[in-house]
Amino acid sequence: MLEDRIRRPSLMDKIVSPAAAAGLIRDGMIIGMSGFTRAGDAKAVPIAMAERAKSDPFQITLLTGASLGHDIDRMLTEAHVLARRMPFQTDATLRAAINRGEVMFIDQHLSETVEHLRSNQLGPIDYAIIEAAAIREDGGIIPSTSIGNSASFAILAKKVIVEINLSQSLDLEGLHDIYIPTKRPTREAIPVIACDTRAGLPYIPIDPDKIAAIVITKEQDSFSTIEPADAETQAIADHLIGFFEQEVALGRLDLTLNPLQAGIGTIANSVLAGLSDGPFHHLRLYSEVLQDSTFDLFDAGKLSFASGSSITLSSACSARVYGDFERYKDRLVLRPQEISNHPEVIRRLGVIGINTALEVDIYGNVNSTHVNGTHMMNGIGGSGDFARNAYLSIFVTKSLVKGGRISSVVPMVAHVDHTEHDVDIIVTENGLADLRELAPRERAAKVIAHCAHPSYRDALQDYFDRASSRGGHTPHLLEEAFSWHLRSRDSGDMRKPAARAAAE
Amino acid sequence: MLEDRIRRPSLMDKIVSPAAAAGLIRDGMIIGMSGFTRAGDAKAVPIAMAERAKSDPFQITLLTGASLGHDIDRMLTEAHVLARRMPFQTDATLRAAINRGEVMFIDQHLSETVEHLRSNQLGPIDYAIIEAAAIREDGGIIPSTSIGNSASFAILAKKVIVEINLSQSLDLEGLHDIYIPTKRPTREAIPVIACDTRAGLPYIPIDPDKIAAIVITKEQDSFSTIEPADAETQAIADHLIGFFEQEVALGRLDLTLNPLQAGIGTIANSVLAGLSDGPFHHLRLYSEVLQDSTFDLFDAGKLSFASGSSITLSSACSARVYGDFERYKDRLVLRPQEISNHPEVIRRLGVIGINTALEVDIYGNVNSTHVNGTHMMNGIGGSGDFARNAYLSIFVTKSLVKGGRISSVVPMVAHVDHTEHDVDIIVTENGLADLRELAPRERAAKVIAHCAHPSYRDALQDYFDRASSRGGHTPHLLEEAFSWHLRSRDSGDMRKPAARAAAE
Repeated sequence: MLEDRIRRPSLMDKIVSPAAAAGLIRDGMIIGMSGFTRAGDAKAVPIAMAERAKSDPFQITLLTGASLGHDIDRMLTEAHVLARRMPFQTDATLRAAINRGEVMFIDQHLSETVEHLRSNQLGPIDYAIIEAAAIREDGGIIPSTSIGNSASFAILAKKVIVEINLSQSLDLEGLHDIYIPTKRPTREAIPVIACDTRAGLPYIPIDPDKIAAIVITKEQDSFSTIEPADAETQAIADHLIGFFEQEVALGRLDLTLNPLQAGIGTIANSVLAGLSDGPFHHLRLYSEVLQDSTFDLFDAGKLSFASGSSITLSSACSARVYGDFERYKDRLVLRPQEISNHPEVIRRLGVIGINTALEVDIYGNVNSTHVNGTHMMNGIGGSGDFARNAYLSIFVTKSLVKGGRISSVVPMVAHVDHTEHDVDIIVTENGLADLRELAPRERAAKVIAHCAHPSYRDALQDYFDRASSRGGHTPHLLEEAFSWHLRSRDSGDMRKPAARAAAE
Repeated sequence: MLEDRIRRPSLMDKIVSPAAAAGLIRDGMIIGMSGFTRAGDAKAVPIAMAERAKSDPFQITLLTGASLGHDIDRMLTEAHVLARRMPFQTDATLRAAINRGEVMFIDQHLSETVEHLRSNQLGPIDYAIIEAAAIREDGGIIPSTSIGNSASFAILAKKVIVEINLSQSLDLEGLHDIYIPTKRPTREAIPVIACDTRAGLPYIPIDPDKIAAIVITKEQDSFSTIEPADAETQAIADHLIGFFEQEVALGRLDLTLNPLQAGIGTIANSVLAGLSDGPFHHLRLYSEVLQDSTFDLFDAGKLSFASGSSITLSSACSARVYGDFERYKDRLVLRPQEISNHPEVIRRLGVIGINTALEVDIYGNVNSTHVNGTHMMNGIGGSGDFARNAYLSIFVTKSLVKGGRISSVVPMVAHVDHTEHDVDIIVTENGLADLRELAPRERAAKVIAHCAHPSYRDALQDYFDRASSRGGHTPHLLEEAFSWHLRSRDSGDMRKPAARAAAE
């Protein structure tokens, strides 16, 4: 049945082993790989690349959509294949190498990477390595469970390696909508005017002569590792649902809300799932990754349509969804991440963006990426694309981590990913701070009262009181703005005094 | 000749004194006033409001386009009229009141304010006070030298007060293009696809019955206070021109460049004017404020078209331009600031954005607003709208201020307006750092080598070396990240030791 998967007969000659495909890669090349939040990643060739590098060392610049599954980033890091990596990652081993300064990580807004490629500010891509459900007779690539940056990688690359994954359902054909913005400065408007707009092709159009190799795999996508809702994520969801109900009562939204986006991870997934219980209906998603909650909302009869760039599911949900994909397919579309995250479309649709903060400060600035201001976790991802352009920019976080030793609400975030201008609402299990149209001093009052954990509230208020007595639009005591982080860094506990800092 | 200015006869009855118009304003009202970078501001009624408040105290929320001329913000501040002020200001007296916490200042991306009004997250506006060159027979308002937020203020306000300014040329009629985005989430694409697109009406369409009062004035716009280029701004311009030439040589741009935006002020104005001497031609501006440099470029035969939201000129340039306005008019358009600054249009056109930084850090984060991290200067203005969505986001600053006592390049900015993700190029008189596609450690090397003043370079390198030895994607020593600002705050000199900080 390989003819169903490789429909252009002349391409059958291109089938090679993963090792042979990996052998095409040369030291110093720029490689663009499929993969977005573990979905639709190339699985065989990168592992063969890591294997090869053990005996034949080489280094590359690796671009992906977003995070990969199957420990690929770990294996490539351990084999010292990665000189440069962009625009996002979530792997512990890679993260450690980034933080040691061994791998140069370029942390980018997810909508922007292919703009840089298209304008020759980055690249060119030597090889695109793209997982596909099938190749059409005209050479067009039918992606699998994600698009990410795959379309522009394949279109702009000198050569393409395709991984045909037999475990990916052929039912995926028709799910994708590949629209590529035209060249600037004479670009046309992006014709996506609703979550369900189809503006492009259901495949990636490339010259079949660019296909240098085809590898056959049957490895499934890595399943998501999302944890179930707990009392705190449920409280966050409840606060947010109460807020949405209030906005409806005020006439600002109706019960269908505006199109929703939710970031990756447990908290955002729980919040979305929580909407199953509210009075809302005919909801729409205009998001990046479609998680379990998307299908929970479909099954609850609450969701009309979901647009994303990938589908990343738990094992149980995956079986449910792909066991009866026709049930969902006409209410789904996957787009290039440039389009799922495009400022133009997000602003046009008035998306309600829900993203996770690592920490927030009393003025509503958000750190999404850097532990103690220095050490990278994953990357900014699409949070900036959404937060800046959303109708409502919402950030969620639990107020405490590490058993209360760390407060997620601090005097000053030690790294800024989202400035107060881009943060409308902050929600923790303690409550919701509506920061719209407030000055910094007013924002501080709300964040301290509604978001901070009670065990840290007095200390935050004390900081704010002493800072504001010194004046300023955004009052701070620069000499102790990071004292909480220093205590955390040096004692593991924001409440315990830090050892006297040596360098001061 | 008042019939030329007020073309709907029934409105003649609405002409009142400034004091009478000011008498309509009640305590607690939300007022939207015209005015953007000193141009086209309401001049008579706000001054009458300040006068009235001396004997009849009242407070308002004041929204404008951007900054006002004629010391209006000073007079309103001194009369304690301003409870809340948004989205931008540049007045020293108001700034001091903001920093004392007396006036609540909401510092917003300039494209966003009217989105909040339109979605009832802010407002409603009780009175819009709009300067006009004329009122049409159908009640349509023909703005003067700026549009700013005037169109949406007038359309969304309960009532409108019009200041007919006889000093504003009737030749301005036809200059404006008022396009208002349709309601979300079913908004259409904004039809501006080039700098010279005309998509809307040459006047603000309102129901004439909403006009509550008309005041006749003849006060000219405040002239701009831009200083001439000096050796340092010339060096910045030269570095940038060299960079553009290099981009052309690499085939990334042609000699017409992409549409240009330049922020308000002396440095950006000098940089634009510097393009008169380069090999570039048929340049286009897609900017906020059209300054003297716009007309210098027209007169040098370098500029094809300029789109902005206001025209703010020096006295000499104003005489030249308005003395022969027909010479320029068909190459100019003024738009609502929502459109001049719209993410959708900026990204579509691939604008090259040139904005001024207050300080930058070694990783390329930019502080545009807060002196020593706490005290507001003016506001973020449109810099975020442009920097985030630009094809190239360029920030310019002199490397030293206050005779060398302050370095504009610091270990960590004490307030972040633009994160490293949104900053491609930094230019000082010392050189240009091209930060595209670089990791933070690589960015630091470039910023220190090319942008920092030689007298601070060793200290920055020493900070970076010690920080990076501790690890991290973005190495910092949190205990001394702000030590430069503390020395500046306490001794006025970043090079002199700070007094031992009392609070630590």
